[in-house]
Amino acid sequence: MVSRSPITNKEYPLPSTAEDKQGINDFLALHPGKKVVVVQGLGFVGSVMGLVVANALTEEYAVIGIDLPSSSSYWKICSINEGVFPVIASDPKIDIYYKNALHKKNYYATYDSYAFSKADIIVVDINLDVKKKSSISKDLEDYNVDLTPFKKAIESIGHQCKPDVLVLVETTVPPGTSQKIVRPLLEENLTKRGLPIDELKVGHSYERVMPGPKYIDSIQNFYRVFAGTDEKSSEAVEIFLRTVIRTDEYPLTKLGNTNATEMAKVLENSFRAMNIAFMVEWSRFAEEAGVDIYEVVNAIRMRPTHKNIMLPGLGVGGYCLTKDPLLASWARMNLFGSEERLHQSEKGVHINDKMPLYAFEYLQSQYNGSFEGKKVLLLGVSYLNDVGDTRYTPVEGFYEQLDSEGCEIYLHDPHVLYWEEKDLWVNQDMDELLKQDYDFIVVTTGHKDYRNNGELINKLIAKPRSFIYDTIGVFSNDEIKSLAAKHVVKVIGRGDL
Amino acid sequence: MVSRSPITNKEYPLPSTAEDKQGINDFLALHPGKKVVVVQGLGFVGSVMGLVVANALTEEYAVIGIDLPSSSSYWKICSINEGVFPVIASDPKIDIYYKNALHKKNYYATYDSYAFSKADIIVVDINLDVKKKSSISKDLEDYNVDLTPFKKAIESIGHQCKPDVLVLVETTVPPGTSQKIVRPLLEENLTKRGLPIDELKVGHSYERVMPGPKYIDSIQNFYRVFAGTDEKSSEAVEIFLRTVIRTDEYPLTKLGNTNATEMAKVLENSFRAMNIAFMVEWSRFAEEAGVDIYEVVNAIRMRPTHKNIMLPGLGVGGYCLTKDPLLASWARMNLFGSEERLHQSEKGVHINDKMPLYAFEYLQSQYNGSFEGKKVLLLGVSYLNDVGDTRYTPVEGFYEQLDSEGCEIYLHDPHVLYWEEKDLWVNQDMDELLKQDYDFIVVTTGHKDYRNNGELINKLIAKPRSFIYDTIGVFSNDEIKSLAAKHVVKVIGRGDL
Repeated sequence: MVSRSPITNKEYPLPSTAEDKQGINDFLALHPGKKVVVVQGLGFVGSVMGLVVANALTEEYAVIGIDLPSSSSYWKICSINEGVFPVIASDPKIDIYYKNALHKKNYYATYDSYAFSKADIIVVDINLDVKKKSSISKDLEDYNVDLTPFKKAIESIGHQCKPDVLVLVETTVPPGTSQKIVRPLLEENLTKRGLPIDELKVGHSYERVMPGPKYIDSIQNFYRVFAGTDEKSSEAVEIFLRTVIRTDEYPLTKLGNTNATEMAKVLENSFRAMNIAFMVEWSRFAEEAGVDIYEVVNAIRMRPTHKNIMLPGLGVGGYCLTKDPLLASWARMNLFGSEERLHQSEKGVHINDKMPLYAFEYLQSQYNGSFEGKKVLLLGVSYLNDVGDTRYTPVEGFYEQLDSEGCEIYLHDPHVLYWEEKDLWVNQDMDELLKQDYDFIVVTTGHKDYRNNGELINKLIAKPRSFIYDTIGVFSNDEIKSLAAKHVVKVIGRGDL
Repeated sequence: MVSRSPITNKEYPLPSTAEDKQGINDFLALHPGKKVVVVQGLGFVGSVMGLVVANALTEEYAVIGIDLPSSSSYWKICSINEGVFPVIASDPKIDIYYKNALHKKNYYATYDSYAFSKADIIVVDINLDVKKKSSISKDLEDYNVDLTPFKKAIESIGHQCKPDVLVLVETTVPPGTSQKIVRPLLEENLTKRGLPIDELKVGHSYERVMPGPKYIDSIQNFYRVFAGTDEKSSEAVEIFLRTVIRTDEYPLTKLGNTNATEMAKVLENSFRAMNIAFMVEWSRFAEEAGVDIYEVVNAIRMRPTHKNIMLPGLGVGGYCLTKDPLLASWARMNLFGSEERLHQSEKGVHINDKMPLYAFEYLQSQYNGSFEGKKVLLLGVSYLNDVGDTRYTPVEGFYEQLDSEGCEIYLHDPHVLYWEEKDLWVNQDMDELLKQDYDFIVVTTGHKDYRNNGELINKLIAKPRSFIYDTIGVFSNDEIKSLAAKHVVKVIGRGDL
């Protein structure tokens, strides 16, 4: 078994033991007297959180990132220690911060939970996933929250941690988790080890990380909400956050308990998921009434009370909006014993999950022909504009529909080299892609590269007649007019073009 | 039959004929050469719209307000002509504008549709209601849109209007109405009268009137969206609006067709209704989890993308949010032949309509005793803070529950003298009300008078022990602590106080 870096393509054989005591001790010997922060999880959040802590504002920390020596994670550990940061991002600060950490030698990565025994502070940035049975069509009850991997990770802390450690959970968890699961598990393990529990500190402060051009700022220069499982914990969390976040400009908000901070995160994502779902029906109604929903929404947004109204699109993706409402509903029933689900929030996820299917059905209804053997160019596979993140991207459901109809599909995305979930390589070279002709050209992500891009419009006009389908609404009315002189052009929710 | 003014208590016998030709001609003789604007409907919108047109920015109009000589409307006609403006509002501009109109003698009111024959511009500000079967509990399909009264009003215009009149609909109507109902009805009537139809202009521009301290500004200093049923109509609407609205600061937004403007209004209200409904489940979840939903929402609102997230409350009232989503769904099916309702938007109204019942059930669950013969003081009957507007107020459903349980109910509201829908007088004198003792004191409207009001808190503390129930969240944590030293205090969504 090996773990391959998608950045360097280098392959790393997985280690035969979980042992890295020497590496950890050697690293810590370089930083006597410094507080040790262990970041658990080296994904999109943890790897960059480690970087921010290694570049803390008012304290010098020794930072250890820890993840599992699995084929999907081990390369990240090696990469950090070898001087290649395991995340590609358009944010130039990533490079600056990483070079600085290399210079200070204060960011080490490991897979040995021995690291927890050295930690003054442990930041939990692991995943907590919701399993859905299928990717685009599912019933409300067709999901499952399995806390087993999360609990196992917390237990691995409990087996080794100091009794006075601060465990700060940043993972988006079902409300109630810090109080009802994390703290009891840690206390239980400390007690088993014959250690006191009264100095243990457990808190929750959710991250609002946005991979992209402001990756670092989304941690260091952004508002934070936090709480502790008791007053002592709350104080410790606050002291730590003040050393890494620019709290003078982005004041911290302390909430009454960790249930509240955990709820805040899933509530804010449910709000957003819900408001996207809300627009689904309205954009269909707009279609029926020959109304351009974009101009309607832009008019409504002039009211400050309505600024957050959403626009239609291909669907909802990413790690948060696709699952957080479900985490909340699950917690309501399973951690607080309510007999009621959060119906509307679950429904929001349900509607959003079906959006790619609807986008495909719309295409079918407008095209009225067989898709067998048709050549399709998809512009964008990322779930979000200007970011290379394909997790739960709605393009997947749309791709699968085209694929099952027998289309020959070509992919463009300026930010994605490799579409991990589909095991597909993605082309960044539009000119190369446009050497071929396509039956369908579909805008599937709202990247800046596709907006107000006169050159792209001209290239498309130069191609033989094709069916151009803008699922996002990136093209302006003028661009649509230019394209429509040559091609068939359709945009969901734009009415009669 | 008489029509009684709730402002002066004066009674007016209803007129025996619909004839007021002389009055209209005498009025118009005072304003030779001026354009004549007839405002149809003298309710919350029309009466003040007439005032704004009489005080237009760049044109001198002769304004005639017209309404039916019914017991509920006739007094308004008389009142305008007698020098008493028929709306009580905290906006001082109302008084200034009305005095100016009296001075210029350019705002006349009548019930004779002869006025339409003199109009260059007719502004339609009549109601278009949705009939719901019951006030607090209803099924999704338990409503009905009857266009008959609206059509009759439009026909009364068609019977008399000039062939080149501009009819500007401001009423919130089902999308499609201007194009599919208003224009055809007017054309049909002009044709019957042997008149041409090619100079007829019909447009739609919805108002965003907020009765209250910025009543006039909500018309004159606010963004407007407009469209015409054809280009000529659209131009005429724009020219008119520019004369009455401060379009330099609040630019007009022209949309592609009247379906779009009509949709914009019901969409923006559906957005708001939906976001209130969304919080209903979450505030219950917060209750279960011991979380203060107010602090959670305030933390979330720090994100610009989440500023429009709502707070919990007693329910949703007023003329718009309680019906506009239903108008939209009805139009989708009945004017555009869709087989799909707007499920989520209808559901939003449904959930909101049940909020007062939930607020009562919460009280029952917290109080755990009989309500028979209990004395209850309700603070606020208006549906909105700082405004005297009881239309569809959620206090009604809550009141009815208390009433049916045999409570003795006392009402306070600084802005409401008379609760028209319940035919009840409302007390403005808190001191007088507090001469008695109450079993329950319930905050039912978020008036400024109840917020940060140390004097009120002290008066309540001085009363014998009672059950204080803040359904709105007007009391601060400190105020709640002070009250709780003496009383039982409950707030929906504040968790464990």
